[in-house]
Amino acid sequence: MERRTFLKVATGGAAASATLAAPAVAQERIDMAIVSTWGRDFPGLGTSAQRVAARIEEATEGRIAVQYFAAGERVGAFDSFDEVASGNAQAYIGTDYYWKGKHPGWAPFTAVPFGLTYPEIDAWMKFGNGQALLDKIGAEFGIKGIPCGNTGLQMGGWFNKEINAPEDLRGLKMRIPGLGGDVMAKVGASPVSLPGGQIYENLVSGAIDATEWVGPWNDFFLKLYEAAQYYYWPGMHEPASQVSLGMNADWWSQLSDNDKRIITLCCAEENAMQPAETNYQNGIYLNRLIDEYGVELREFNDDVYDAFGEAASEVIEETRDHSPLAAEIIDSFIEVRDNAGVWSNLSDAPYVAKRNRFLRI
Amino acid sequence: MERRTFLKVATGGAAASATLAAPAVAQERIDMAIVSTWGRDFPGLGTSAQRVAARIEEATEGRIAVQYFAAGERVGAFDSFDEVASGNAQAYIGTDYYWKGKHPGWAPFTAVPFGLTYPEIDAWMKFGNGQALLDKIGAEFGIKGIPCGNTGLQMGGWFNKEINAPEDLRGLKMRIPGLGGDVMAKVGASPVSLPGGQIYENLVSGAIDATEWVGPWNDFFLKLYEAAQYYYWPGMHEPASQVSLGMNADWWSQLSDNDKRIITLCCAEENAMQPAETNYQNGIYLNRLIDEYGVELREFNDDVYDAFGEAASEVIEETRDHSPLAAEIIDSFIEVRDNAGVWSNLSDAPYVAKRNRFLRI
Repeated sequence: MERRTFLKVATGGAAASATLAAPAVAQERIDMAIVSTWGRDFPGLGTSAQRVAARIEEATEGRIAVQYFAAGERVGAFDSFDEVASGNAQAYIGTDYYWKGKHPGWAPFTAVPFGLTYPEIDAWMKFGNGQALLDKIGAEFGIKGIPCGNTGLQMGGWFNKEINAPEDLRGLKMRIPGLGGDVMAKVGASPVSLPGGQIYENLVSGAIDATEWVGPWNDFFLKLYEAAQYYYWPGMHEPASQVSLGMNADWWSQLSDNDKRIITLCCAEENAMQPAETNYQNGIYLNRLIDEYGVELREFNDDVYDAFGEAASEVIEETRDHSPLAAEIIDSFIEVRDNAGVWSNLSDAPYVAKRNRFLRI
Repeated sequence: MERRTFLKVATGGAAASATLAAPAVAQERIDMAIVSTWGRDFPGLGTSAQRVAARIEEATEGRIAVQYFAAGERVGAFDSFDEVASGNAQAYIGTDYYWKGKHPGWAPFTAVPFGLTYPEIDAWMKFGNGQALLDKIGAEFGIKGIPCGNTGLQMGGWFNKEINAPEDLRGLKMRIPGLGGDVMAKVGASPVSLPGGQIYENLVSGAIDATEWVGPWNDFFLKLYEAAQYYYWPGMHEPASQVSLGMNADWWSQLSDNDKRIITLCCAEENAMQPAETNYQNGIYLNRLIDEYGVELREFNDDVYDAFGEAASEVIEETRDHSPLAAEIIDSFIEVRDNAGVWSNLSDAPYVAKRNRFLRI
């Protein structure tokens, strides 16, 4: 008898299962409810999360039966963490800086202003102390986290006036959440937190003066070009926002070694897939924004960047001061920023500048 | 009966297998001999290849029994392709530009001078037409290729004199293989092809004046700092050398969907793992080269880069002229270079420059 036939019997659905003892079947089918912080089918973040959820079920040949709930379909986005920590759901997909109110040490696992680019954060997670520290903070909350996506560097945002000096930021009401918002507050702006679906109306009505979202591809679909003219680069607030699959730690600990391995592989695949998709789409949509909608690009100058930098250093120091664990995480992240940063000086950054200058890209 | 018991019987080694009909067992244990183009335990490229080989056996729970042969252990590095195409081995791990003598369309799947960075080539492979075109050229040779590693941007190389103008390259005997060597020939240098193990002695003896290898981490172990003082950046010849798992297409076509899926996942994981390790190690080893061995960094200036650029454009055009398939590959690669390149202008490159300027990294 071929093993393939065995598998068919064991996983062949209700009809075949009826011939097997019920408890055995129950042991084989592992339920995994995933609650996500993203809207259903949201291009980029949402579609990436749905892809990794589907991949886990597919690659375990249905041993793990995944049910995916977009934000609001089972719990609200910001309730995802508690839903998983309590064991009501088995996993969330989202950005861990959402939980910085529980512990600020979560923030560096998504993004920190003046923090790590995607190549750098991936180096930290896989070969620095990143994964061990994510496990350490996770253990305090009953969560096992694995990176499963990354937005890459985000744009600086949409503005209705030019920002030529730090003073131009004063009094500006800007939608910018998280530590990036803390940086903006320090330079005199008024940061506002708004979910994606409410940004457009607030920008059109003048309730806010400026906003950031993600980048050309994601932003295109929010039609922000209808409400603001200047699109600033490069963003400093989220240099590469990492997404996590955060699993209930007890549930994770009971999986077989191979199921753990397959989930880890699916996360690793998507962790590179989302940035690849973003890098593919961003240039195409940036050209559309400029050519079809008259968006004007503006570069943050050195004076403005220095003001951001001073504020970011303070925000990072305040995060560090919270607790020994927060300090351990920040120190580890800064060590990689220093070392990988030295290499970043000599690699893609200057190459892209020189290649594109010559090719007029 | 639990499914886990079934699995144990089916994959439980010789003793258990003896109770099953021999043909069924033979169908279940799939042999996969992998011949690699890298030396055993070679830091970076070699260890990465060994990692993906081990991962395939592990993640298939031994269904696929992998035997890994480093360069020279079964066939020489450059015989790997024929060994797999003929069916003597099931797969190679190596860089596909080694096969450009068979068809120049293979080269862009590793690296092209003035070509794609790692984020850009990954965007091309996964969301541009890259994988489809790798399948198309592979089909002509009976090879199914999947990317399974990447060195990232390589350094410009080791020189004993400063390169301040294109004229300084004339007559220089430099170890630089592939299309990068073709570029060097066009600017008046004499490119030489040498395996890694012979570079040091040739540089010390003066048989060559200059060499490139990979980057700070890999180069450190060749002790090139003992034989040359100036370490030039940024390299233009291999902006992100992609490594492939090239499988015998007939063998691949007979795998189950799930075995194909697991192999694909293992490759995707390692494709991001190797760059993460390189980005982690390069900064550390760069600092060591400078602080402990007095290596001096030098930047290729714009005049030199323009000369490289003109030559690279000619080399790319000559590759394109080979055949309709080569043209299709080059045109697809250039489309992504143009589009993703626009985004590269605004993302990590300027962010790293501004962040590191402020932080003095």
